[in-house]
Amino acid sequence: MNEQHRMERAQRLVTQQGLAGLIIGTGPEMAYFTGHGEGSHERLTCLVITADSHRIVAPMTDLAGFDSAIGWRDGQDAHALAVEILPPGPVALGSSLTTHHVLRFGELIDAPLTHLPAGLFDVKEDAEIAELRRAGQAIDRVHAQVPGLLLPGRTEADVAAELHHLILAEHDVVDFVIVGSGPNGANPHHSFSGRVLQPGDPVVVDLGGTLNSGYHSDCTRTYVVPGAQAPEDFCRAYEAVRAGYLAALEKARPGVTAGEVDGAARASISDAGWGEYFTHRTGHGIGLSTHEEPFIIAGSERVLERGMAFSIEPGVYVPGRWGIRIEDIVVLGEELERLNVQPTVIR
Amino acid sequence: MNEQHRMERAQRLVTQQGLAGLIIGTGPEMAYFTGHGEGSHERLTCLVITADSHRIVAPMTDLAGFDSAIGWRDGQDAHALAVEILPPGPVALGSSLTTHHVLRFGELIDAPLTHLPAGLFDVKEDAEIAELRRAGQAIDRVHAQVPGLLLPGRTEADVAAELHHLILAEHDVVDFVIVGSGPNGANPHHSFSGRVLQPGDPVVVDLGGTLNSGYHSDCTRTYVVPGAQAPEDFCRAYEAVRAGYLAALEKARPGVTAGEVDGAARASISDAGWGEYFTHRTGHGIGLSTHEEPFIIAGSERVLERGMAFSIEPGVYVPGRWGIRIEDIVVLGEELERLNVQPTVIR
Repeated sequence: MNEQHRMERAQRLVTQQGLAGLIIGTGPEMAYFTGHGEGSHERLTCLVITADSHRIVAPMTDLAGFDSAIGWRDGQDAHALAVEILPPGPVALGSSLTTHHVLRFGELIDAPLTHLPAGLFDVKEDAEIAELRRAGQAIDRVHAQVPGLLLPGRTEADVAAELHHLILAEHDVVDFVIVGSGPNGANPHHSFSGRVLQPGDPVVVDLGGTLNSGYHSDCTRTYVVPGAQAPEDFCRAYEAVRAGYLAALEKARPGVTAGEVDGAARASISDAGWGEYFTHRTGHGIGLSTHEEPFIIAGSERVLERGMAFSIEPGVYVPGRWGIRIEDIVVLGEELERLNVQPTVIR
Repeated sequence: MNEQHRMERAQRLVTQQGLAGLIIGTGPEMAYFTGHGEGSHERLTCLVITADSHRIVAPMTDLAGFDSAIGWRDGQDAHALAVEILPPGPVALGSSLTTHHVLRFGELIDAPLTHLPAGLFDVKEDAEIAELRRAGQAIDRVHAQVPGLLLPGRTEADVAAELHHLILAEHDVVDFVIVGSGPNGANPHHSFSGRVLQPGDPVVVDLGGTLNSGYHSDCTRTYVVPGAQAPEDFCRAYEAVRAGYLAALEKARPGVTAGEVDGAARASISDAGWGEYFTHRTGHGIGLSTHEEPFIIAGSERVLERGMAFSIEPGVYVPGRWGIRIEDIVVLGEELERLNVQPTVIR
């Protein structure tokens, strides 16, 4: 990855937006610029970027791995050390800073605090897209094995335990495992439970992991446990979600707004009569964070650009019955590229 | 745990401090009041406490497990829903809210934003101390097995892998494993590496886990790999750290400030000639978070009270050579109680 190039882009943005600088906390945003995102709990570690400089401010005990960092000792005013680097003027803060840090910077900086400017992370470089493609293939290989795991009599937790191993075999870290069978599938953020799979149960399986490069996978398929037919209304709703998914895929092009992509999926699913059960946004950006800009959400006027990577994941959730979600990661390029191509098999 | 009692205490604090209310984000602070701390990534989930009410505001998709919650859908202004609950006046924010949320509340609330008042979490109830005691015993049983693992020819990573299993056998979650041998011990936040243990190496081993109740363990011992004598200056410094640890233990009583406890350890270690190598604070509170108030740090005027639980963990770190840290969790009661009693064996 080209950290030098990224820093220069950030510095151009500082100048263009008339900012004194950026203060970026630990996590994926710092890793994007420095290759290191780890921090030390509640102690301030931050990257300060001005139009013509960049410095890390970190506890003296945590300087390993950083070049030209300013170390501070417990008892020193770390926030003041960071603010001293900045010229006067408004400052944009990275998304990971927590209350204590934001309020303290607000006390020390006599100018408005804003969010990071749009466009800092959401257009991916080729090397980043290559990593996301690798992540997509990794999670596809896991999904290819799911139908063999969803057998009547096993619990969601049994299946989830096997999925943990399968994700780890393809990634460095397991981010999440959702196995939502029958009524549990109607909760989009269910993880897994002791519920026993029944023949004909619809099952929402949403899986994600992190590669050693820090890039994430995220893919959902909806399956049916063999041994009985799935409910008839589920089959109709599945076709509606699939149509909504295809409508969003069709709409997602450079120049279109994120809100229009959400609207395409929502209109399609609403026209089929399932709109009130599509209770969440259509998607989210993905990269060094699993959820980041651009958010594919009603009302968003964010214009999509070439190089953006995000999920398209409409769903329908009928409380007490079942849930459905289809999720792929896509990249906007010359053509729209789907990073997840494992077909859904509804038996 | 008595969540009703906790809520009433928070509401009394709201009144006493002349606040409109508290807004608490996901994580241990929310779990303290509701038993649930999970949130949904960047979407707003918060607990709003006023003098006479308390409500959860959460995405419509995440209401399971919460009573009397206000659900919002993607596209709605969630922050405005939270602020509508509050009367006019200053608002205190919980520590886990991130930049986006803090800045947005700042836009919506026409009064100062502050931190949560001191004293909300730092004095533990008896049931909490019982959990911390259980955590201390759990990590002590792990430390009891460490000397048998630190054999010449094994790597730090070999030892760490076994420690992961041993911590999981005693806890629900592994929080961290530090195995810092020889020069790696001089980095207080080293985790573990492929370095091969040598006879006579000092090794800093700092271990922590989470019980199913959410309470944490955190304990450090410094060992010596058998087969050779440890360096002579290490042995002298070890005695100095131990004396500093005992001085802090002696000083820590209700009515004393956190700064005075730090000062006691620091003066003792400085008098022995190792002060410049004691590069971090003496300790931190512990409970549903591993690091929380009270911080035992130079300059802190926080007065210690009965029922507080915190670490005492002085250390000495000589770059390129070795590190030393001794860490126990203590509770201030009628008598000071050490929750970690596994003796150190320097062979």
